[in-house]
Amino acid sequence: MSSDTTPTPELDLWVEERHRDIVGARFKVLRTLFSGTSEYQKVDVVESAGFGKMLFNDGLAMVSERDEFVYHEMIAHVPLFTHPEPKRVLVIGGGDGGTVREVIKHPSVEHCHLVEIDEMVVNACREHIPLTSACLNDKKVQVTIGDGVKFVAETKEKFDLIIVDSTDPIGPAAPLFGKEFYQNVHSCLADGGIVVSQGESVYYEQEMQRSLLSILNNEFSITRLFNYSNLTYPGGLWSFVYASDKRCPLADFDESRVAASGIEFQYYNEYIHRAAFMLPEFQRKALGSTLKPLPK
Amino acid sequence: MSSDTTPTPELDLWVEERHRDIVGARFKVLRTLFSGTSEYQKVDVVESAGFGKMLFNDGLAMVSERDEFVYHEMIAHVPLFTHPEPKRVLVIGGGDGGTVREVIKHPSVEHCHLVEIDEMVVNACREHIPLTSACLNDKKVQVTIGDGVKFVAETKEKFDLIIVDSTDPIGPAAPLFGKEFYQNVHSCLADGGIVVSQGESVYYEQEMQRSLLSILNNEFSITRLFNYSNLTYPGGLWSFVYASDKRCPLADFDESRVAASGIEFQYYNEYIHRAAFMLPEFQRKALGSTLKPLPK
Repeated sequence: MSSDTTPTPELDLWVEERHRDIVGARFKVLRTLFSGTSEYQKVDVVESAGFGKMLFNDGLAMVSERDEFVYHEMIAHVPLFTHPEPKRVLVIGGGDGGTVREVIKHPSVEHCHLVEIDEMVVNACREHIPLTSACLNDKKVQVTIGDGVKFVAETKEKFDLIIVDSTDPIGPAAPLFGKEFYQNVHSCLADGGIVVSQGESVYYEQEMQRSLLSILNNEFSITRLFNYSNLTYPGGLWSFVYASDKRCPLADFDESRVAASGIEFQYYNEYIHRAAFMLPEFQRKALGSTLKPLPK
Repeated sequence: MSSDTTPTPELDLWVEERHRDIVGARFKVLRTLFSGTSEYQKVDVVESAGFGKMLFNDGLAMVSERDEFVYHEMIAHVPLFTHPEPKRVLVIGGGDGGTVREVIKHPSVEHCHLVEIDEMVVNACREHIPLTSACLNDKKVQVTIGDGVKFVAETKEKFDLIIVDSTDPIGPAAPLFGKEFYQNVHSCLADGGIVVSQGESVYYEQEMQRSLLSILNNEFSITRLFNYSNLTYPGGLWSFVYASDKRCPLADFDESRVAASGIEFQYYNEYIHRAAFMLPEFQRKALGSTLKPLPK
């Protein structure tokens, strides 16, 4: 469907994301704003009835204006309030810009480099979802269209924080869930640096979570997994993985910095920061020995 | 649809629960096990492809075998591990039996009284969902088919814990969200007693959460709200409300009792107990002054 055949609002139009052919999430759509196929994936932006504008990659919901704050605040502020003075941040993926928007709210951040493989995602979001993309014009922000896997293999730059803001481990994002990628991420981190990555569904992707944690456990001395709940992703409860050689997001977290920052949050706060690392029992059991014990 | 017209498994059959006509959750159905209309509501039990057997009241998903443990463990164990020695428990609603199943895992509990208004729910679950209903035959359990609103207005019995395991505040459950009901609940509590109630969706029902907390704030000196994430309810992230005149679920919680109990959990644990009370910022703002500050 191209944008010149946008249906009239009178149609009872719904977009559905099916998961494993057992469950489907449907969103009522008012109209299609953009539809294209890049070298990497199908990219669609729709205006929904209840969730604002929504970005879909290969038919999977990536961003909705209604609840994007949950994902973007949690992937950014948990590591940024753990590191005492993050200056240089690399975001791999995240072409919608929402993660970058949260990163540059921290006054210590001098430089935020976004490396997104798919220019169509960046352009579609720049045109249709300024809520997340407007920050990409900020003077602290550098946008590179390129392969994040190659970037971390080749760059000589060091970063205090690397955020892997990826789609699911299929298609262009698959190497972002592999061992070699994280070895390179490790060598791009400055002393005391942190990496945080999109960690998939708590209920549906336990094997992937174990795999990601295993890779990180081989590379880093501190690894953790933390959860968040949103409206848009299948099953609602999803995770991020966290790794660092020096900084524990619980033991090294100074909660007084949160209020002192003056940043306005919608989901994150000093209570949620700690609570997000407290996992339900079935998840702890499924992760088994890949999950390191909490600090005393 | 009656049970003698059960469709063959070959049909691509889905049941959909729509929420405010902006979002729909669809579950693939293998066959209908029960379908009836009681004095109070439509009652359906289906066998789903990915979520086991599911109970629907008036088309709204109430129970799925896949994730019912989340709701039932959290509504029961949070208050039962806060009260030092709960002996007598009243469950209003909850005709599927899942809450009672968790309550009687606590050895201190001598008597658990279930008061469910709709006999059809109890009978359908007894026949088709033994996972939740088998416990209703336990010798500690008394099942009364009757109106919980009348029960708490008339009984002279006292309870250490009252659990309001209700459907949404429409139809037969509407009075369970009212002021008079909670005044009567209050007078049925023994000294140091606790009430916990189904508290609706975090993302979609903020006005209802404020209303429930306001009613409880007028009656009880300690009130709180805690969250859980499941797969079945719209938006995933839902709440329970908590009230007591004496016992705070954070300050009075002795986490060593959890492991010592020997109870096997799937969702609840000593970490989740505390973390569930840490609310996202948008929820804290929406609840405003109805949300009491956390203890130091």
